[in-house]
Amino acid sequence: MTGQMPEWIAVDWGTTHLRAWMLGPARAEPAALSSADGMGRLAPDEFEHALLRLLDPYLAAGRVVQVVACGMVGARQGWFEAPYAAVPCPPPGIRDAVLVPARDPRLAVRILPGISQANPPDVMRGEETQIAGLLADTPGFDGVICLPGTHTKWVHLRNGAIERFRTFMTGEIYDLLSRHSVLRHGMLRDAWDRNAYLEAIDDAMERPRLVSAELFSLRAATLLHDMPPAVFRARLSGLLVGLELAGVLALQAIDQVTLIGSEALSGPYAEALRSRGVRAERLSGDAMTLAGLKAAWSGLSEKGT
Amino acid sequence: MTGQMPEWIAVDWGTTHLRAWMLGPARAEPAALSSADGMGRLAPDEFEHALLRLLDPYLAAGRVVQVVACGMVGARQGWFEAPYAAVPCPPPGIRDAVLVPARDPRLAVRILPGISQANPPDVMRGEETQIAGLLADTPGFDGVICLPGTHTKWVHLRNGAIERFRTFMTGEIYDLLSRHSVLRHGMLRDAWDRNAYLEAIDDAMERPRLVSAELFSLRAATLLHDMPPAVFRARLSGLLVGLELAGVLALQAIDQVTLIGSEALSGPYAEALRSRGVRAERLSGDAMTLAGLKAAWSGLSEKGT
Repeated sequence: MTGQMPEWIAVDWGTTHLRAWMLGPARAEPAALSSADGMGRLAPDEFEHALLRLLDPYLAAGRVVQVVACGMVGARQGWFEAPYAAVPCPPPGIRDAVLVPARDPRLAVRILPGISQANPPDVMRGEETQIAGLLADTPGFDGVICLPGTHTKWVHLRNGAIERFRTFMTGEIYDLLSRHSVLRHGMLRDAWDRNAYLEAIDDAMERPRLVSAELFSLRAATLLHDMPPAVFRARLSGLLVGLELAGVLALQAIDQVTLIGSEALSGPYAEALRSRGVRAERLSGDAMTLAGLKAAWSGLSEKGT
Repeated sequence: MTGQMPEWIAVDWGTTHLRAWMLGPARAEPAALSSADGMGRLAPDEFEHALLRLLDPYLAAGRVVQVVACGMVGARQGWFEAPYAAVPCPPPGIRDAVLVPARDPRLAVRILPGISQANPPDVMRGEETQIAGLLADTPGFDGVICLPGTHTKWVHLRNGAIERFRTFMTGEIYDLLSRHSVLRHGMLRDAWDRNAYLEAIDDAMERPRLVSAELFSLRAATLLHDMPPAVFRARLSGLLVGLELAGVLALQAIDQVTLIGSEALSGPYAEALRSRGVRAERLSGDAMTLAGLKAAWSGLSEKGT
């Protein structure tokens, strides 16, 4: 397998997933691996084995491979804690990473820190690396970034530093309501009604305080008026995203947002923002993660480690 | 068992519970039975068996016992559908009940209808009987009633009729967040910090659009500032109840509320309302359910059925 051996390995290790890219100078498109061994299902002493299970075909005896990782793997309940950097600060680089005491001599694993904010209290792990990727791709970028996800982050970036940020639980609340609440009965199909989505965005932005009543009305409208599943799903999403946008736009006037994330998540955010007169640009979350890990790697190479 | 035989049986049959009271002229304090055979775990053809399992010691061959029931047992997915009455209307009485086609000849079961509202779409099943109980105990009651629960109802009552109502998903969202979300890590103890609760009520009422960010801040404050469990739990509850109160009080100025529910649920609502200058009176949910079923029974007796 030596012919396949990577120069180094980039790892994105979140709560629900583990992804790795095999990287080297000769490789235009890196091989990518993934598993469901997210931090959420691993005890601290299980991380190394989970990583070896994924990487084994790419490791060779007697040779140390450098691994640069980001995400929840560095949380207190993760593999090895990488203490937060505090805002205002640039995205942490390789000099801030912790070297994990791995048992297997073929692994040299570094974990990048997350970022914290004392007031209002907030934390991120993983998104800071995507922001590093954005700054590597677009040096001098200033502005507002939104990273949609289970816990959506809104980040203000200036002069290469993260000034402040705020996390909204929109994605997790959507997931809980659509899978576990009385509203699950309305999630019959993947259909999507764009107009219903934008109408719900407006409703929630204009009357955010009524969102938990509007949510129950979805159930009642299904019982009483046979609300179509495409309207139901779009309106559930729109009410929660609209509540978030009401909060974000009340904190500060924003006329342009750069979205970093999957198409499935960023698309509806972009549509909602544009309907409210905000310009929205979209970047791939995976591409930014990889760009951020590469930026960290280049810092490691410069150190000559 | 004839000596124990009730004249009639009152049944409160919700999503998660089945409760029955044995009633008769000689019985001052009715015997109460309950089981976990809620509507949520029963298929339509399992209801009769679940009821017989509970009532069997009180039934005798050759004698028909009258049963008056309320709650989700009358939903479309329940035992037998009791179609909604539509607002504005008084709480439905026994004349609006459906007679269930039970197979066992010892049972004559009637289910009271729920209430619907076309716009904004809303429904209730069970709470209308508690309201009937309030009206039986306090004829001529006019005002605003709050029935805290999984789906908290706010009801406007005038001249003996339910004029309109609105349901908030506060209880279910609290339950999902505290048991299934990232916030579950903070639910370590049952402790309760009253000041933190009232502060969160104020925060959510003043900035309802930031609630989903304030929720994530609870997690971050635990990680960064060791937020005490008593503050965590009280603040989670206060943010969600505060969002609801912001919605209710924006719809209409209210200076007095009658709460119907358990002490555990009504207590915090009463405290929040009083802190905002609203008078709050509390009535037992069980007592109002039983009073409402008794009022329905008296209608049945008058019919001479």
